[in-house]
Amino acid sequence: MKNQITIAAAMVLGCAAAAHGADVTSPGGQITVHADVIDGVPTYSVDYKGKPIVKPSTLGFTLADGPDLMGGFKLTGTETSTFDETWQPVWGENANIRNHYNELLLTMDQPEHYRKMNLRFRVYDDGVGFRYEFPQKDNAMAYFIIKEENTQFAMTGDHTAWWIAGDYDTQEYDWTESRLSEIRPNMIGSISSNLSQTTFSPTGVQTSLQMKTDDGVYLNIHEAALVDYSCMHLNLDDKNMVFTSWLTPDAQGNKGHMQSPCHTPWRTLIISDDARDMLSSNLILNLNEPCKYADTSWIKPVKYVGVWWEMIAGGKQWSYTNDVPSVKLGETDYTKLKPHCNHPANNENVRRYIDFAADNGFDQVLVEGWNEGWEDWFGHSKDKVFDFVTPYPDFDVKALNDYAHSRGVKLMMHHETSGSARNYERHMAQAYKFMEDNGYNSVKSGYVGPILPRGEHHYGQWMVNHYLYAVTEAAKHHIMVNAHEAVRPTGLCRTYPNLIGNESARGTEYEAFAGNKPFHTTVLPFTRLQGGPMDYTPGIFEMDIKKLNPQSQGHCNSTLARQLALYVTMYSPLQMAADLPENYERFADAFQFIRDVAVDWDESRYLEAEPGRYVTAARKAKGTDNWFVGCTASEHGHKSNLSLNFLDPGRKYEAIIYADAPDAHYLTNPQAYVISRKTVTSKSKLKLTVAPGGGYAISIRPIK
Amino acid sequence: MKNQITIAAAMVLGCAAAAHGADVTSPGGQITVHADVIDGVPTYSVDYKGKPIVKPSTLGFTLADGPDLMGGFKLTGTETSTFDETWQPVWGENANIRNHYNELLLTMDQPEHYRKMNLRFRVYDDGVGFRYEFPQKDNAMAYFIIKEENTQFAMTGDHTAWWIAGDYDTQEYDWTESRLSEIRPNMIGSISSNLSQTTFSPTGVQTSLQMKTDDGVYLNIHEAALVDYSCMHLNLDDKNMVFTSWLTPDAQGNKGHMQSPCHTPWRTLIISDDARDMLSSNLILNLNEPCKYADTSWIKPVKYVGVWWEMIAGGKQWSYTNDVPSVKLGETDYTKLKPHCNHPANNENVRRYIDFAADNGFDQVLVEGWNEGWEDWFGHSKDKVFDFVTPYPDFDVKALNDYAHSRGVKLMMHHETSGSARNYERHMAQAYKFMEDNGYNSVKSGYVGPILPRGEHHYGQWMVNHYLYAVTEAAKHHIMVNAHEAVRPTGLCRTYPNLIGNESARGTEYEAFAGNKPFHTTVLPFTRLQGGPMDYTPGIFEMDIKKLNPQSQGHCNSTLARQLALYVTMYSPLQMAADLPENYERFADAFQFIRDVAVDWDESRYLEAEPGRYVTAARKAKGTDNWFVGCTASEHGHKSNLSLNFLDPGRKYEAIIYADAPDAHYLTNPQAYVISRKTVTSKSKLKLTVAPGGGYAISIRPIK
Repeated sequence: MKNQITIAAAMVLGCAAAAHGADVTSPGGQITVHADVIDGVPTYSVDYKGKPIVKPSTLGFTLADGPDLMGGFKLTGTETSTFDETWQPVWGENANIRNHYNELLLTMDQPEHYRKMNLRFRVYDDGVGFRYEFPQKDNAMAYFIIKEENTQFAMTGDHTAWWIAGDYDTQEYDWTESRLSEIRPNMIGSISSNLSQTTFSPTGVQTSLQMKTDDGVYLNIHEAALVDYSCMHLNLDDKNMVFTSWLTPDAQGNKGHMQSPCHTPWRTLIISDDARDMLSSNLILNLNEPCKYADTSWIKPVKYVGVWWEMIAGGKQWSYTNDVPSVKLGETDYTKLKPHCNHPANNENVRRYIDFAADNGFDQVLVEGWNEGWEDWFGHSKDKVFDFVTPYPDFDVKALNDYAHSRGVKLMMHHETSGSARNYERHMAQAYKFMEDNGYNSVKSGYVGPILPRGEHHYGQWMVNHYLYAVTEAAKHHIMVNAHEAVRPTGLCRTYPNLIGNESARGTEYEAFAGNKPFHTTVLPFTRLQGGPMDYTPGIFEMDIKKLNPQSQGHCNSTLARQLALYVTMYSPLQMAADLPENYERFADAFQFIRDVAVDWDESRYLEAEPGRYVTAARKAKGTDNWFVGCTASEHGHKSNLSLNFLDPGRKYEAIIYADAPDAHYLTNPQAYVISRKTVTSKSKLKLTVAPGGGYAISIRPIK
Repeated sequence: MKNQITIAAAMVLGCAAAAHGADVTSPGGQITVHADVIDGVPTYSVDYKGKPIVKPSTLGFTLADGPDLMGGFKLTGTETSTFDETWQPVWGENANIRNHYNELLLTMDQPEHYRKMNLRFRVYDDGVGFRYEFPQKDNAMAYFIIKEENTQFAMTGDHTAWWIAGDYDTQEYDWTESRLSEIRPNMIGSISSNLSQTTFSPTGVQTSLQMKTDDGVYLNIHEAALVDYSCMHLNLDDKNMVFTSWLTPDAQGNKGHMQSPCHTPWRTLIISDDARDMLSSNLILNLNEPCKYADTSWIKPVKYVGVWWEMIAGGKQWSYTNDVPSVKLGETDYTKLKPHCNHPANNENVRRYIDFAADNGFDQVLVEGWNEGWEDWFGHSKDKVFDFVTPYPDFDVKALNDYAHSRGVKLMMHHETSGSARNYERHMAQAYKFMEDNGYNSVKSGYVGPILPRGEHHYGQWMVNHYLYAVTEAAKHHIMVNAHEAVRPTGLCRTYPNLIGNESARGTEYEAFAGNKPFHTTVLPFTRLQGGPMDYTPGIFEMDIKKLNPQSQGHCNSTLARQLALYVTMYSPLQMAADLPENYERFADAFQFIRDVAVDWDESRYLEAEPGRYVTAARKAKGTDNWFVGCTASEHGHKSNLSLNFLDPGRKYEAIIYADAPDAHYLTNPQAYVISRKTVTSKSKLKLTVAPGGGYAISIRPIK
C-alpha cells in the first residue's frame, strides 16, 4: 500500500440554507443514490441502471441514554466530491487497485436536542458505501450509547438469497439458498450446533449476504472497516422485504458505546448484473483506510502445512495426558503426568512435517497442541486457560525452531484463547516476544467457546476491539495474524495487512465433522470472502475420513481435483495444504499443483461465476508470467468453456490440467482425476466438464 | 515475613467410618466451635466463654450449573491439629505476630452426585476462621458456578451493630450504629450518592461488620484472603437475626466460577468481651498465606504530602483545559489547547511541594492530574481513558523527578483507571516500566465509576482478580500499590506486602464534601481496618473548607488535635499529611507531631476502645524507644485515664501532649489545641479530656 498514486481528487462544495436532498451517481453512471431528510427522517434509495435496487429506506438509531436519533432531523447541507486513485496492496488479488467514487455528504441537525449527525455516501461503479458520522463540534452528543442501529435496506422483491443464521457468536453454519420469504421456514433447520452460539431472530441473517433479483441483478450487503463498533446483522421484515440492521449487544444489552467525533463502519452494497463483478469488486477494500504501517517488508504470504488434520480428522489429541481432570497453569506439573501418547505435537512428528515442508517448498509448519493447558481448554468458562509460552514436555521449542530454520522453513505459532480475552491480553506482550525470540513470524489464533469477559459476544464492540488490538500489538513484533472464530473480516487487511487471514465461516474442518454442503465453495467467494481472505485450509486428498479415524462419520464433499482448484478460487495470502503428508505422497502427481501454485498475485480474473453453482478464477502469479486457473462447482457439476484471452497474445504456454475424471463424483468417486498437458495461447478455448461437487485446476506457464 | 519460627506444629488425625461432628476449642479454651452434618446439612455453632455467640448455622451453596450443595452430605471424617508459629511482617503494628490455632477439618461426601466438599475451621483465642474446600481427587465437580454462597451466621440476639449498606460497587458510606432490628428502617437513610453504587437488599450490609451483644461481647464478621472469589456481604433475616452470606455477582448474575482444587476465602469471627482485643487481633492476617516474595527489601512505609487537597477541597482541577468536550488519547493535541490555568499539577507547584516534603522529612509527593485525559475521565463508560504515561504539557516528568531525587524525596505515581480495567491492564506493563524508568516506587491507583468490562462490579470475582493482578505485576517492578475504590482488604498485605494501602471506606476527602460523622474514626478501626491499612489521608488543619473554596459546604468534623491522633489510631504504613503546606505553616507547633510520628512499629497497644465512642492506641516506633499515643473520640467527647505502664520501667521520658483546648469542639472551635510537655515514667498516669469530635496525640521519647 506504498506509493499511492492520486490521479484525481476534486472537491465540489454544495451548500444551501434550506437544503434539499441530493443524488450522487457512480463514475460510470449506472448506480445512483438519492438521499434526503423526509419529515425529519434521513432516507436513501439506490437505483441500478435506472431501476430501483434499494427502495426508500430510513436511517437512524435508538439510544440507551437519551432521545433517539430516529427523527426530528433537518438537512443543513450537502457536499459532493469525486475521488480517483490507484493503490498497491501489500498482498492481494491484484497488484493495483483503483479506488474511484463520487461522494455525497449530508449534514444534519436535530435542533430539538442540539445534536448533529451526518451521512456520507460513496458511489462506485460496483456499488455503494455509506456511513453515519458524528462530528464533535457543537454536538450535544459527546458520548452516547446505541440501543440499536436502524438502517433499512428495503428490497425490491422476494430475491433469492444465500444466507446463514444471524448469530452473535458463530458464523460456522452451512449456507442456505432460498427466497427471502423462505428464510423464516428454513431458519431452524439452518442452525447446527456450535460450542458457542447465540441466534436472535427467526429472520436474522449475517452479512455478507448475497442476493439475486428475478431480473438477474446481484446484490450483496456487508460492511467495511468494522472498528470500535459492534458487528452488524440483518433482520428481515418478510412481509415488506425490508432488512434492518441488528447489532451485536454487549453484556448489558447495549450495542455500541460511542464518543464523538466518530462514525459507524461503512454499510456496503455491491451491485451488478454480472455475477463475476461481485467477485472482482474491491469496494470493501477501497472503503477501508490506507495501510497504517510505515514498513511492511516483514509481511509475506505463506503456504504451509501443519500438525492439525491428525487431530481434526484423525482422532489424535491436542492434549498431552488423561491424568488430570483439570489443569492449573503453573501448578500442574506435566513432567510428572503420564502422557497418553496420542499427541502429535511431539518432537519426532513435527520434525517429519518440517522435512515434508522443506522438501516441497512450503514456508511454514503450523503446530497445534504444543502448549500446556489443552486437557480442559473449553467448556468451563476458564479464565487462565493458556499462557502461550509453556510447551508440553515432548515439544522442544528451541530445538524444533532451530531445525526448521536449518531447513529453510519456519514454525507457525498457535494461540488458542478459548475465548478468554483478558487472559490473552495479559499474556500477549510476553507471547509475542516469545515468538520473536524463537523465530516465529505468524500466529494462528483461536477464540473457541463463549467469551470472557462473561456476557460479551464474539462479535460485540468489546471483542471487535480486542481482535484489532491483537493485530496491532502483533505488528509491533512483526507478527502476522490469522484469527479463527474472530469477527468476520470487513477489509481491515488493507489498513493492517499483517491480518493475513481469518476463519469466520465453515472451513475444511467441517468436512471431517459432518461435511459442508457440496456447493459451499461456490458460495463463500460471494459471501465470506468479500471482507477478506479465509484460512480455508484446502487440499484434502483422502475424502473418506473413516480411513483416518474409524470412529468418524466425516466425508469431504469434494472431488480431489476441486481441492486443487480451491487454491485459486478461495483467494488467500495464507494457504494450507491440510492433509497428511502420507496422503500427498499417495497422489504425488496431483500434489504437484499444490507445490506449484502461488499465494500472491499481480492480476486476477473471474472467468465464470454464479453463486451456489460455480466459480472459475484465473490469477497471474506475482512477478511471473505464470497463470493458475481454478474452478469449483456445486453438486450439479458444471461445463466450462474457457477463453484464455488473458494470456499474452502471440505467446505459447504449457497448460497442465488437473480435472475430474469422467466418472468422478464428490460422494462416490472423489479421487478420480485426470492430468493432461496442452500447449495453449491467448486464442485457445478450453472445454472442461466438472463432476458433481467437482472442479479443476490448471497451471499455465510460458514455454521458453 | 522472613525468618519464620515454627514453635510447634503437631497433627492429630481422627477418622471414623461413621463419623460424627466434632468440637474444636481455642488454645486458651474460651472459644469452641462445634461442627457437624445434620440431616445432610453442614452446620456449625460457636460458643464464647461457655455461652453461644453463633447459634447453629447451616453452610452450603446453590449452584448455577448443577445440583446445589445445600444438603445430601455425609460426614466422612474429621481431623484436628494444632499450629503455633511467630512470624515477622515486612511492615505492621508489631514486629512479631503469633499465629496460634487449633484446627478442625470436616471431610464430606455428597454421594448422590459423587461430589466432595470439606470444611476447615481454625480456632484462635481471639476468634474463628472457617472456609469451604473443594478437593480435586474423586470429585465430580472439576468446575462449578456458584449461584450463591449460603453461609449462615445465626446471631444470639438483637445486637448493636456498626454497619454500612451492602453494595457491589462502593464502601464509601457513613457508618450507622443501630440494633440489628433497626437496619431495615435505617437502610435508605444510610445510603448517600456515589459515582458508582449498587445496593441489593434492605437488610444487606457489608463486612467487616462490628457488633456488640447486650452481654457486652464484641463480635466482628469479615473475611480473610479474598482471592479468585467474589466479595462477601451479609444479608440479615431480621425476624430470626440470622445473617447469610451474599456474594457480589458478575455481569451474568453468577457469583463465582470455581475450579477444584479450590477453596473459599476464610469467613472470620473475631470475638472478645474486651473491645481492645478486637483492635489488637491479628486473626485476619494470620489466616492469610505467608509472604510470596523472596525479596522484600524494596518495600518501605511512606509518609507523604501531595497535590491533592487543592482539588478535593480547594476547587482546583485535575484537568488541564476546558477546550475539549471529550478527549481521544493520542489524537487530542494538548499543546494546541488553551490551559484553564487552574491545574495545580504543574511544574512550579509540584516543586513547591517537593521543597515542602524535603524540608519536613516526608518521603514522597503524590501528584494527581499529571497525565492526559482528565477532561472527561468519568461518567462516560470510557474505555481508553488514560494511558498512564503521557503528562500534560505543564508537567515535566523527568525534570520534576530529578529535582525531587536531588532533594531526597520521590514523586508518588497516580493511576486513575476510571474503572476501566481492560485499559489499565493493556497499559500496565508500560506504565510500571515508565515508573521504574523515572524513579517512582509507589502508585496510588483509583477505580472511580462503573467498571469496564461493563456489567462487572467493583467487588466481583473478575475485579478481585484484577486488583491482585495489579499488585503482583507491580511487584515485578518493585512498586508499592495503594488502590482506591478497590475491594475492601482481607489481610492480603501479609502475602503481598507491596499492597501498602487501600481506600475502601470514606476517607478524609468526605470532610471536604459533606463531612463524615464525628464518630467515623472511632468506628473504622473496628471495621474497615480489620482487613488492612487504609490510606485515610489525615492531617487537616483548616476544617472550614469554605476558606479554601468559597463554593464548598464542607466542614471537617474533627478537632485539629484529633487530626494528629489519627496518625496513631488509624494504623497504616502509608500516611499522608493531606492539608496544604500553607496550613501547616500556620500551625507549625502542631505540625511538629506529623513531622515526628513514625509509620512503622515494633509494638502496638490499644489502651482504650469502644466502637463508636473512642479508640486510644500507643505504638512504639520501629527500631527506637519512642512511643506515640493517639486518641480519637466521638461527638460525645471522652475522658482518658491512661497508664503509661508500657514504657520501660525505671526510665524517664519526655511526653509532648497535643490536646484539645478546654473550649475545643469539632464544629465550633476545632483549631483550639494546647501543647504541653511533661516528664513521664512507666508509673505515670495521664488524665486527658477529649472535646466532642476531638482527640489527642502524644509523642514520648526517652530522656537521654
